[in-house]
Amino acid sequence: MKMTIPTIDDIRRAHERIEPFIHRTPVLTCRSLDDLLGARLFFKCENLQKVGAFKMRGATNAVELLTDAEAVRGVATHSSGNHAQALALAARNRGVPAYIVMPDNSPEIKKAAVAGYGAAITYCRPTLAAREEGLREVVARTGAHFVHPYNDARVIAGQGTAAVELLEEAEDLDLVLAPVGGGGLLSGTAIACRGLAPHTRVIGCEPAGADDAYRSFHSGTLTPVGNPTTIADGLRTSLGELTFAAIRRNVDEIVTVSEEAIVAAMRLVWERMKIVIEPSAAVPPAALWEKKIEAHGLRVGIILSGGNVDPARLPFA
Amino acid sequence: MKMTIPTIDDIRRAHERIEPFIHRTPVLTCRSLDDLLGARLFFKCENLQKVGAFKMRGATNAVELLTDAEAVRGVATHSSGNHAQALALAARNRGVPAYIVMPDNSPEIKKAAVAGYGAAITYCRPTLAAREEGLREVVARTGAHFVHPYNDARVIAGQGTAAVELLEEAEDLDLVLAPVGGGGLLSGTAIACRGLAPHTRVIGCEPAGADDAYRSFHSGTLTPVGNPTTIADGLRTSLGELTFAAIRRNVDEIVTVSEEAIVAAMRLVWERMKIVIEPSAAVPPAALWEKKIEAHGLRVGIILSGGNVDPARLPFA
Repeated sequence: MKMTIPTIDDIRRAHERIEPFIHRTPVLTCRSLDDLLGARLFFKCENLQKVGAFKMRGATNAVELLTDAEAVRGVATHSSGNHAQALALAARNRGVPAYIVMPDNSPEIKKAAVAGYGAAITYCRPTLAAREEGLREVVARTGAHFVHPYNDARVIAGQGTAAVELLEEAEDLDLVLAPVGGGGLLSGTAIACRGLAPHTRVIGCEPAGADDAYRSFHSGTLTPVGNPTTIADGLRTSLGELTFAAIRRNVDEIVTVSEEAIVAAMRLVWERMKIVIEPSAAVPPAALWEKKIEAHGLRVGIILSGGNVDPARLPFA
Repeated sequence: MKMTIPTIDDIRRAHERIEPFIHRTPVLTCRSLDDLLGARLFFKCENLQKVGAFKMRGATNAVELLTDAEAVRGVATHSSGNHAQALALAARNRGVPAYIVMPDNSPEIKKAAVAGYGAAITYCRPTLAAREEGLREVVARTGAHFVHPYNDARVIAGQGTAAVELLEEAEDLDLVLAPVGGGGLLSGTAIACRGLAPHTRVIGCEPAGADDAYRSFHSGTLTPVGNPTTIADGLRTSLGELTFAAIRRNVDEIVTVSEEAIVAAMRLVWERMKIVIEPSAAVPPAALWEKKIEAHGLRVGIILSGGNVDPARLPFA
C-alpha cells in the first residue's frame, strides 16, 4: 500500500494506464435540472462505468501497477460493495486471481456479480473485525496483494481520472462536486482539479448521518463516525489517514445533506435525466437541491459516482 | 403535411437544422449484455434525448422548416405521449405557440410536462374521434399548423438523424434495430442506413400484441390493428401510408416479440447499463433476447427510443 499523496502526474499516468480497460463515460447536461437548481450542470456519469461505479478506475490502476511477480499471486480485498466487483474485474482483465472476503449477509445480487467476474469469495460474519481477520487469512494462504478500497495512492490516482475527463469536456467549471465516504474519489478529484483547473473550487458532499469527513475537515483531526446512518450505503465508511491528508490539502469545502434531500435528488436525476443512480451518487445534487452550496449562475461539474441499486426497491417507489 | 418519402439528403439537412436544439446522445456499449446476447451491441441512447425521447428530433425539424408566416400562428397536434412534449418544446424554442389536444385521462405527469413547456392544452375524451375533432377545432380557431406524430416527411427525416449519429460512431454495423409503432423512427432509420451504410441490414421490432407493421410488411397491404395490447405504450399506434411506403422500400425485416421478453429486456438494460428505458425501447433488445434475430457474432446498432416511464411503477418491481 503506497502511502504518499498522489500527484497530478500520477493521475495523468493512471489515465493512460487504465484507458484500455474502462469506459470513457459521457458528460450529460439537463436543461430542466439546470433551471430547477439555478446553475449550469455537467454530470460525469460514472454510474455508466464498468461495474456501474468509478471504483473500476482505482482498482484497475492498482492492479495494472503490480509487477508480474506480484500480480501472479493475485489480489485481495474485503468489501461487500462496488470495490469488490471492480477488483474482481480488474484482476480478470490482467489474468490473475482475485480473492474477495464478503460478509455472509451481502445481497445475493452482489455475491453473484463478484462470482460472475471469476473471483474466489470467502464469506465471513458481517463485522469489520471478521472481515479483516478473513482478509489476513486469505492473504497468508495465497500471498495475494491487498488492495484497499480507498486509502491507497494508486487507488486515489485512478479515481482522479474521472475528473480529468470531466475537465476535458466541460471547460471553465466554477465548482466540482463529489461525494465523500472513504474519500478516494474526493481526493483524486481534488488533486486533478488543483493540477488542471486551479481556479475550480472542489466541494465534498456527505450525508449528515455519516459526517466524519465534515467533522474531520473542520476540526483538523481525523474523526471516524462510529454508527453511520444513511441510505447512501457507499458513504458509510470513514476517511483513512491518506485520504484525510489529501482532502485537507486539496479540497475547498465539505457540506452535509439530509436524507430527504438525497431521496429527492435521486428521484430528480432518474426522472429528468433517465439514468439510474444509487443514493450515494445523489448526494452532490442533493447539496444543490438543499441550497448547501452557493451555485447560482455557476458552471458546476458533478461526479455521479455509481448506479448499483435494485430498481425494484427504490426509496421513492 | 409533406407526403413524399424523404431522402438521405433530407435527413442530412435535417441534422444540420436541428443540431442546435437537440442533445447528441451517447452511444453506449455493455460487455455483459454483449456476452448475454452473443453480439457486439451499440446502443444509441435517445432515452437521454431532450424530452426523454427521439421525438424531439422530428418535431424540431418540422417546426424549424415552417416559414415565419406559418410559424407565427403556432403548431398543433393531438397526443398523450412523447410527441406532445417534443412539439411543445420545439415550438418554445422557435418562440411560437403550441396547441396540444390531450385525452383528459392522460397521466398527470405528462399533462404537467406539456404545460411546463408552455403549451396550451385542450382536453378531450379519450377516443381517437374526440382527439381528431378537438384538433380540428383548435386548428380552425388558431390557424396553427398541424404536425402529425409520424406520417409526415419532415418528422421522418428528423427521426432519421439518430441513425446518422449512430453510424458516425459505430462503424461497420451488420444490423440496426429500431422499434416500430407509427413507423416514423423505423422509416427514418432505414432511409439513413440505406444512404450511409448500404450493407447494414435494418430490422423493425414490434410487440406481438400490436403487430400491424409485421402484418402489413409481409402481406404488402396496410393492415392497422384495431385493439393493440402491449405494455409498450409508445408502439400501440399503427403505420400510416407514408411510413408504410418508406418501410416497404427500405426495411429488410420486421420481427415480433412477446410481452415477457419486453419486460425481461427492460430489466436487463436497467440493471446492466444503469439507464432508464421505457417498455417501447426494450423491444429491440427483446428480439435479441428471444432469439428472433440471428445476430451471433455480429455488430448490432440499437436505437433506444425513450425513457419516459414512472420509476415508481416498474413492471419488474
